[in-house]
Amino acid sequence: MSVNAYYVGLDVGGTTMKAAVVDEGGKVCGTATMSTEAFKGQEHGLNQMVATIRKSVEVSKLSMSDIASIGVATPGTMDIPAGIILDPPNLKPWRNVPVKKHIQEVFQIPTAFQNDANAAAYGEFWIGAGKDVQSMVMFTLGTGIGGGIIIHDHVMEGQHSHGGEIGHMKIQMTPDGRLCGCGRRGCLEAYASATSVVKRAKEALATQTGDSILKNLLDATTEELPAKVVFQAADQGDETAKKVIDDTAYFLGVGAMNIMHLIDPDMIVFAGGMTAAGDPFLNRIRHYIHELAFPVPAAKTIVQYALLGSDAGFIGAAACGRQLVKK
Amino acid sequence: MSVNAYYVGLDVGGTTMKAAVVDEGGKVCGTATMSTEAFKGQEHGLNQMVATIRKSVEVSKLSMSDIASIGVATPGTMDIPAGIILDPPNLKPWRNVPVKKHIQEVFQIPTAFQNDANAAAYGEFWIGAGKDVQSMVMFTLGTGIGGGIIIHDHVMEGQHSHGGEIGHMKIQMTPDGRLCGCGRRGCLEAYASATSVVKRAKEALATQTGDSILKNLLDATTEELPAKVVFQAADQGDETAKKVIDDTAYFLGVGAMNIMHLIDPDMIVFAGGMTAAGDPFLNRIRHYIHELAFPVPAAKTIVQYALLGSDAGFIGAAACGRQLVKK
Repeated sequence: MSVNAYYVGLDVGGTTMKAAVVDEGGKVCGTATMSTEAFKGQEHGLNQMVATIRKSVEVSKLSMSDIASIGVATPGTMDIPAGIILDPPNLKPWRNVPVKKHIQEVFQIPTAFQNDANAAAYGEFWIGAGKDVQSMVMFTLGTGIGGGIIIHDHVMEGQHSHGGEIGHMKIQMTPDGRLCGCGRRGCLEAYASATSVVKRAKEALATQTGDSILKNLLDATTEELPAKVVFQAADQGDETAKKVIDDTAYFLGVGAMNIMHLIDPDMIVFAGGMTAAGDPFLNRIRHYIHELAFPVPAAKTIVQYALLGSDAGFIGAAACGRQLVKK
Repeated sequence: MSVNAYYVGLDVGGTTMKAAVVDEGGKVCGTATMSTEAFKGQEHGLNQMVATIRKSVEVSKLSMSDIASIGVATPGTMDIPAGIILDPPNLKPWRNVPVKKHIQEVFQIPTAFQNDANAAAYGEFWIGAGKDVQSMVMFTLGTGIGGGIIIHDHVMEGQHSHGGEIGHMKIQMTPDGRLCGCGRRGCLEAYASATSVVKRAKEALATQTGDSILKNLLDATTEELPAKVVFQAADQGDETAKKVIDDTAYFLGVGAMNIMHLIDPDMIVFAGGMTAAGDPFLNRIRHYIHELAFPVPAAKTIVQYALLGSDAGFIGAAACGRQLVKK
């Protein structure tokens, strides 16, 4: 490995894909973004991946021969060791796409493949919130809840590529558990995702009459998933919104407690859009973790927000590639 | 390491402690059991540990110079890396007992220290149910529910010695969650331990009038915790008992599903007294796992009973010591 090693990370999403070249310290040298256009088929998708990787190297004023490794992160479902996206709900009609093999054959550079949520967690572990700890579990709070578990520089992808599916831990096992997007009931995601925040807020409003800050803000918004409007209403003192947000912190506290009693990491990190709610929300989550968990992990586990934002995906993808070649 | 390496494992319980010498293949060469007598104080306890270890070596017709390492497993709470039992509920009035340091100083042999449930899981991983897999999570079903998580020959003891506390994963987060022995509500242990089986059976009987197989068997038993009587009543066709047992399988299915979505191991192993219920009970757990988990892990994760019985503790303790010196 040269002193000035460079690694490409590519984060493939449902709408766009973004590649970056990062250096040995994780600094981003240049990025490139292109449309995923999954509907055009997977051959087109693979071509877009190649083009995005090339473009990121170009804008970094490097050549492919400067690149020590490539890492590609995609949504699931997938077979991580085989490097294949199997049947991805967000990339239809792709099916059994041999991502790792294709990228490696085109560039003849060691290529890693990882689940996007795992990669983002590994990015935070490498140079973000978790850079000084030995083990870290990340909850990514968005439309759904993604997760990644990192133990001693090892991404816990699991034996069947299902490790870290934190959003689909069941926290309410009775039949009244909320219906999750995955079709199951009682999953953490069904309670604490941005989707659930909005859903629970609307349910609460449906039982009320008259105006309220929450109702007015929700009626006025044009956002498709206006979770931040619920946080805003809570900030402005709306009692219903405050209850919805506080419940969300409790649900995340339950999820964190379960992680602490099973994996007991150094650090729990929350990432994703909902972290825009800032310290008051984080402090409510911490409050519930203290109330719920065993005293020692409750006192000692570091609980904080992620630092890398949406860059975590491609930085983590690059870090997964770097794992293949370092030392 | 000599070709004929021998390892001592000591499993300290609330009533007795048992040591064994095992060879490189995990075969037990000899064992010794002594009373723990925690009430006599921790100095006495440490002396008993030393004596039990010596005795196991004697009965194996070996001398201490044949022993490559020692492993000691104890109940918690504990600081595993420091080798200290902190404040063990089952070993009162012990407090801050420097087990590892003491044993190592007395014998001058590399000494490992581990939580008893973790050690038992590691024993099963080494030469029991999990000997051919890469990763394994064990649920020990007894008065409470213990657990141990082994990933690639690594015992996931956690950063604060709380890894694998499977019994205290919350599976019912609403305030109606059952009260657990730990003081929390909704823990798996509160639903699926032998204690809970008996409790739920008695609750169900309290709402019924007249005789039943379950009532008669429970009235007749002199056992302190007659979980097996509930299984027996179910076998004899008692509908209430059948429901209690089937619910137990469901609760364990929920616990297993959560493990599969977080850690996604090769294998899930159930151990402890309740496994005497045999294949019908295991098959009900498997049924619920199939119903609950994502299709790929549901189809691929091996779910079975432990093989080593109560030997898993000292065999696993020996294996933890062996980890210190092998290769």
